[in-house]
Amino acid sequence: MELKYQISEEFAERARKVEVILMDCDGVLTAGEIVYDSHGVEIKHFNAHDGLGIKMARLAGLKTGIISMRDSGTIRTRAQELGYDFLYLGRMDKCTAFADLSKKLNLEPEKFCFVGDDLPDVPVMQLVGLPVAVQNAVDIVKQQAFYVTQKKGGEGAIREVVELILYARGSLEESIEKIWQVNQ
Amino acid sequence: MELKYQISEEFAERARKVEVILMDCDGVLTAGEIVYDSHGVEIKHFNAHDGLGIKMARLAGLKTGIISMRDSGTIRTRAQELGYDFLYLGRMDKCTAFADLSKKLNLEPEKFCFVGDDLPDVPVMQLVGLPVAVQNAVDIVKQQAFYVTQKKGGEGAIREVVELILYARGSLEESIEKIWQVNQ
Amino acid sequence: MELKYQISEEFAERARKVEVILMDCDGVLTAGEIVYDSHGVEIKHFNAHDGLGIKMARLAGLKTGIISMRDSGTIRTRAQELGYDFLYLGRMDKCTAFADLSKKLNLEPEKFCFVGDDLPDVPVMQLVGLPVAVQNAVDIVKQQAFYVTQKKGGEGAIREVVELILYARGSLEESIEKIWQVNQ
Amino acid sequence: MELKYQISEEFAERARKVEVILMDCDGVLTAGEIVYDSHGVEIKHFNAHDGLGIKMARLAGLKTGIISMRDSGTIRTRAQELGYDFLYLGRMDKCTAFADLSKKLNLEPEKFCFVGDDLPDVPVMQLVGLPVAVQNAVDIVKQQAFYVTQKKGGEGAIREVVELILYARGSLEESIEKIWQVNQ
Repeated sequence: MELKYQISEEFAERARKVEVILMDCDGVLTAGEIVYDSHGVEIKHFNAHDGLGIKMARLAGLKTGIISMRDSGTIRTRAQELGYDFLYLGRMDKCTAFADLSKKLNLEPEKFCFVGDDLPDVPVMQLVGLPVAVQNAVDIVKQQAFYVTQKKGGEGAIREVVELILYARGSLEESIEKIWQVNQ
Repeated sequence: MELKYQISEEFAERARKVEVILMDCDGVLTAGEIVYDSHGVEIKHFNAHDGLGIKMARLAGLKTGIISMRDSGTIRTRAQELGYDFLYLGRMDKCTAFADLSKKLNLEPEKFCFVGDDLPDVPVMQLVGLPVAVQNAVDIVKQQAFYVTQKKGGEGAIREVVELILYARGSLEESIEKIWQVNQ
Repeated sequence: MELKYQISEEFAERARKVEVILMDCDGVLTAGEIVYDSHGVEIKHFNAHDGLGIKMARLAGLKTGIISMRDSGTIRTRAQELGYDFLYLGRMDKCTAFADLSKKLNLEPEKFCFVGDDLPDVPVMQLVGLPVAVQNAVDIVKQQAFYVTQKKGGEGAIREVVELILYARGSLEESIEKIWQVNQ
Repeated sequence: MELKYQISEEFAERARKVEVILMDCDGVLTAGEIVYDSHGVEIKHFNAHDGLGIKMARLAGLKTGIISMRDSGTIRTRAQELGYDFLYLGRMDKCTAFADLSKKLNLEPEKFCFVGDDLPDVPVMQLVGLPVAVQNAVDIVKQQAFYVTQKKGGEGAIREVVELILYARGSLEESIEKIWQVNQ
């Protein structure tokens, strides 16, 4: 097994402190599509590779959470399936949600990674230790990010973030072995 | 915050007069997909970045509206969610709809921007002060447009139009700050 | 209005004879996605530009039809909306369907265009006067086609075929004017 | 009919031994999207060209099966429609499923092809005679594959695999003729 990742020393340093990976939903776990049918039912397109990424993060002892302005049954269904630890949905004030969480967990901001794509994500990204923008993020969000993913939201951006953090911590290979053990 | 937009002087001049941003739906707010299920239920894919664009336009005091040949519960659900000011749906005669609106608002055509993608949009585009075609528009529509967006319909074309208009008016930074204040 | 299309003399000759445009559905009117939900409901993604293309064909006096191996409520809903003249759905034997239609209309094969994307379309394509493959067709189908569209199925391939045929017949401008008259 | 495929001698040798083509579902038969609506209903996007590929495999006497960690009504609907021979759904332990199948069929591992895209597919891929990764597979899976498809999952990757195997066995042309006979 040959694992090749290119990360800077500062990325590694920041990643090693991360204990919680937080993320926006639309545009990050999805491509940003807001889909309705003519009866008002909402539909969301998540990604299977991201799903395994969340599983790998959990197997490595990291916590995961979603902070989103939208609240939807689709997010709740997917979050329950993957075992997210924290859900803050329908929150216009993402900073308040973040403050609430960091206080509850008694963790300093440098222990958090946040992955975003649009303006409402910027205030939280300015607080956390590892702010990440997805490839499809708007320019201002990319300017605020320490790292911009190669993958777009909905195409495996979260998986990329998880693998890079685990690689920086030296535990990626172990996480992959755990996935394989479950599947043997 | 570094805001870089390249707009011509004439674009700026036209954009500063705009008070109402009108748009077609299919191909502009969506990629142009017409989706049905086997029970006849219709599905539409909108875009989260466009949604925030409509919000930014409203925070800046601009009015927004949709003029579409199709009428669908999906458009109405999305339009209500985003707070569009005007909805003209199921209208084959877009010019009549536009005449009705400009009369009701007592605004001259130069106060309107219209964003379109296909032949039925051309007659209205020939009337308004700032006619815009999306990247995925058919050639004749692009020929009639003063500006062609870099983004495709359903991938943030309306967000691009809103940001350019606000930038031309010198109020983009203020709109972004307002979004951040709500989210802090 | 500047209309630029590059067609060969033989394409023009064949196109001028066409009175009926026939097409496969999956991969031609759609991108070829077969979509189900967990209750067995089927979903199909058509294209708005294609829809206007069918309308333009009808305004120009051309007949249109679908010959598909699949039968689905989604096709029927879309076909009824656009006013297709002929529907042969659930037909494994496309040649028999074609023979039935050409006999009923008393039209020779050269009066037909057929647009296909996969192996089952080849036998009919070998019969008609203007066989067309979409950009996403498999290689063998492209080899059998007289013309390969620039657009993919579901992204406006049928609109492209209709515009080229109308352009060859010298009636494209008139069709566009008719669309505009309806919309003024 | 001109059939051009570039395969290595070792690919041909391995392909000629294959009697069963097994595959993962998400990311292989689909693009890897996990889609929910707000009522928890799941939606999957399969591909029509893959569908004909499965049909061609069956006409050539090959068996086909799906081994997936997920169980869903969408897979069952599609699998029944296409006539898959074996379904192992909701299986975390793909190797156990594979062992069960190879024992039941009394076939050695070299008689199997497996097409995968993500980590859980690797243990089975290390067992079979012809391990294949789709174009959108993660790097480690590509490293374990003997062949990487040019097409992505959900865009015809399985059709590509079937055609290559039939070509290696010298029976592709016959399979195509069979498809045409059914359609004449």
